[in-house]
Amino acid sequence: MALFSKEEFLSRIKRTKESMDRAGVEVLIAADPANMNYLTGYDGWSFYVPQVVVLALEDEEPVWIGRGMDTAGARHTTFLDRERIIGYPDNYVQNPDRHPMNFVADFLKGRGWERKRVGLELDAYYFTARCHQELVKSLPQAAFVDANLLVNWIRLVKSDQEIEYMKQAGRIVEKVMRTAIETIRPGVRECDAVAEVYRAQVRGLPEFGGDYPAIVPMMPTGEKTSAPHLTWTDEPYRQDQAANLELCACRHRYHSPLARTIYLGPKPPPRLQELAGITVEGLNAALEAVRPGEICESVELAWRRVIARAGFEKESRIGYAMGLNYPPDWGEHTASLRAGDKTVLQENMTFHMIVGMWMEDYGFEASESFYVTGDGCRTLADFPRKLFVKD
Amino acid sequence: MALFSKEEFLSRIKRTKESMDRAGVEVLIAADPANMNYLTGYDGWSFYVPQVVVLALEDEEPVWIGRGMDTAGARHTTFLDRERIIGYPDNYVQNPDRHPMNFVADFLKGRGWERKRVGLELDAYYFTARCHQELVKSLPQAAFVDANLLVNWIRLVKSDQEIEYMKQAGRIVEKVMRTAIETIRPGVRECDAVAEVYRAQVRGLPEFGGDYPAIVPMMPTGEKTSAPHLTWTDEPYRQDQAANLELCACRHRYHSPLARTIYLGPKPPPRLQELAGITVEGLNAALEAVRPGEICESVELAWRRVIARAGFEKESRIGYAMGLNYPPDWGEHTASLRAGDKTVLQENMTFHMIVGMWMEDYGFEASESFYVTGDGCRTLADFPRKLFVKD
Repeated sequence: MALFSKEEFLSRIKRTKESMDRAGVEVLIAADPANMNYLTGYDGWSFYVPQVVVLALEDEEPVWIGRGMDTAGARHTTFLDRERIIGYPDNYVQNPDRHPMNFVADFLKGRGWERKRVGLELDAYYFTARCHQELVKSLPQAAFVDANLLVNWIRLVKSDQEIEYMKQAGRIVEKVMRTAIETIRPGVRECDAVAEVYRAQVRGLPEFGGDYPAIVPMMPTGEKTSAPHLTWTDEPYRQDQAANLELCACRHRYHSPLARTIYLGPKPPPRLQELAGITVEGLNAALEAVRPGEICESVELAWRRVIARAGFEKESRIGYAMGLNYPPDWGEHTASLRAGDKTVLQENMTFHMIVGMWMEDYGFEASESFYVTGDGCRTLADFPRKLFVKD
Repeated sequence: MALFSKEEFLSRIKRTKESMDRAGVEVLIAADPANMNYLTGYDGWSFYVPQVVVLALEDEEPVWIGRGMDTAGARHTTFLDRERIIGYPDNYVQNPDRHPMNFVADFLKGRGWERKRVGLELDAYYFTARCHQELVKSLPQAAFVDANLLVNWIRLVKSDQEIEYMKQAGRIVEKVMRTAIETIRPGVRECDAVAEVYRAQVRGLPEFGGDYPAIVPMMPTGEKTSAPHLTWTDEPYRQDQAANLELCACRHRYHSPLARTIYLGPKPPPRLQELAGITVEGLNAALEAVRPGEICESVELAWRRVIARAGFEKESRIGYAMGLNYPPDWGEHTASLRAGDKTVLQENMTFHMIVGMWMEDYGFEASESFYVTGDGCRTLADFPRKLFVKD
C-alpha cells in the first residue's frame, strides 16, 4: 500500500533537519506540494487551498495542516499518525475575514513555537503574498527566514525506490511518444492527437497505470514552434511541417519527460536533417559527459563543443533537475546543466536534458531524462534519438 | 482567429479601470493567469514563471510582461500591439540574484509610475511572497493596495461570447460524462477509465475541440469517496460500490463542470436511491430559485428547505462562480451559493452548483453548471439528473 517505507520518510526528515540546522531554521513551514509529499507522502489535488507541512527541529515527525475535508486524504496517503494530521474549519476557505495561515500560526503558538526562527518557502507557487502577510501578522515574535528550495535541494538525490518510479514513468513515456508519432499526420486535428497522448499517459501499461504529469502535452507545429508554451488548437496538422513533441509520463508524481521532433512529409529539408544530426550528436556527447564527481557546467560544455564545431551556439541551459512534482512545473528549480552551475553530480541525481536548435524558419529538438549511475548515467526511456519522418 | 473582439477587451478594461478607481488603485499588476487572459487574451502554459499584466488608469491599454521566450505566444494570443508586449531576459528565471518582479518594477519606473498607488493580487496563486517582497523593495515610493479579486469580480458577469464558449464546453462535458458512465465497470482499472475521460475532454466534438480543464478528473469510489481530492490509482473498480464522477470540459479556457454518481451493480441499496431522489429534488429546487435580482443565499435556502423536510442538513456552500480559468482551480473565488452571501444575481452570471450528501458509509452527489437568464437560469449541459446504475 505505502509507496515508500517509513524508514525512507524518516531519512528524508533527518536530512531536512540537518539542512534546517545549517540554515538557522528551527521550524520549517513547507507549502510546496512536492515538498509536502516528500516529507509526509501527502498526495491530493487540494493545493488550490492553503496547506502546509510543519517540521520543527525539536519534534520527531512533521505535522500536516490542511482543509478539514482533506484530512481523510492525508490519513490515506501519509505515513503520519492521526494526531499529526490537522484540519482547519471550512469557514477559513476563501473568506476575506480569516485565512488558513492564521490557523497555522495558532498551531505554532499551541506548540510554544511562536518565538522560533521560522523558515518559509517565499517563492513557492502556492505560498501567496497573503499567506506570508498573515503569518507575519499572526506571529509577531517569530523571526522569519527564507527557506525557499531548502527541501528541493534534498530532493535532488533520489532513493532507489524513487528511481524505480521514475523508470516506470520512463517505460510509460516510450508508449506515449510512440502514440504521438503514430497519431500525428496531416489532416488530424491537434486536439485529437493530444487526446491520444493524454490517454496513453493515464492508461500507462498493463503492469502499472499512469499519473497526471505536471505540464500538459506540448505538440506545436508550424509558426507555433517558436512560441514554446502555447497549447493545442482544433486546427489540423499540415503537410511538410515539423512538430515538436514535448511529452511526459508520470508515476506516483515522479516524472519522465521526453522530447522528439517529427517531420510531417516524406522529404524533410536536408538542412533540417543536418541540424538533427548535429543536435543528436551534441545530446549524445553531453550524456556521455555525465558521471559522479563531474560538475553540471562540464556537461553543458560537452554539448557546446559539438555544436560549435558546426558553427552553432545556444545561450540557454540544456537541462535541469527533475523528479517528484505537481503542476505547474516538473522541474525542481535547483541544479541546472548550464555554464556557471558548479553543482557536483552524484549517483541517483535525476535530470531532464533538453536541447533545441532554432533557426529562422526551422528547428529541431530532442531530450532525455536520466539518472546518474556509479560511472555515468542511464536514460529513463529507451527511444531512438533522431528526426522522425512521417511519410 | 481572435476569440473575442477588440471591443470586448476594451469594455473589460473600462470596467476594470472603474473598479480600480473606486478602490483607489492607479496601477494594477495582475498576476492571476485568468485575469491576464481576461484583460489581454494571453493564453499559454507559462505561469510557472512570473508574468503580469500592468494596467494604469492613465494608460489606454494594458501591457503584458513575461519571459522573453513567451512574447511570441503573447503576440499570437493577445489583442495588444507589439510595443505593449515586453519580455524579460532569461537570466531572470530561477536566479537567486535577480527576480522578474525587479524587471516589472523597472518598467513602472520607466513609465514614471513609481509613486503611484499600485494594486496587487496578494492571494493569487502564482503571486508568491517573494514576488511581493521584490516589488516592495524595488518600488520604495509606491503605495501598495490589495487588489485581490478585483478583476475576478468583473469576470463574474459573462459576455454573450463567453457564454457561447461555456455552452460549447457544456456540449463536450455531456460526451465526457457519457464516456465515464460507459467505461466504468467492475474490473476496469481506475486509470483506464480516467484515460477515456481525458481523451473525451480533449477530443471534444467534431465541430470543436476541447481544452485542458483546470482540475483533473475526480472519479473516486469506495472509501475514497470520503477523501474528495485524491486522484486515481491503478486498482480496478469493484462491484456494489458507488463512484462519484466529478468531471469537466473546457473550451478556450472556459469551463463547464458536471458531477454525477454511478452505482456499480444491478441493485443499489434503497437508502441510496432515496438519498438520490431527495438530493436531485433539492438541486432542482435550487435551480428553480435562480433568477436575476435574487440573492445567492436565497438559492441555497431553496435547497436547504427541501432536504430539511427529509431530515437532512448540509453545512458547506452548494455552488460558486465559475468560468475562465487555469489550474489549480476553475472557481472564480467570488460569489458563493451559501448562507450569508448577498451577491445579487444578474443575467449572464455563471455558477457551478454542486450538491452532495454524505452518510456514514454511502453518499450521492450531482451538479449542474448554469448561467443566469432574463427570467431564471439555463444549464450548460443537458444530462439526466439521477443515480446512474450499471448492471
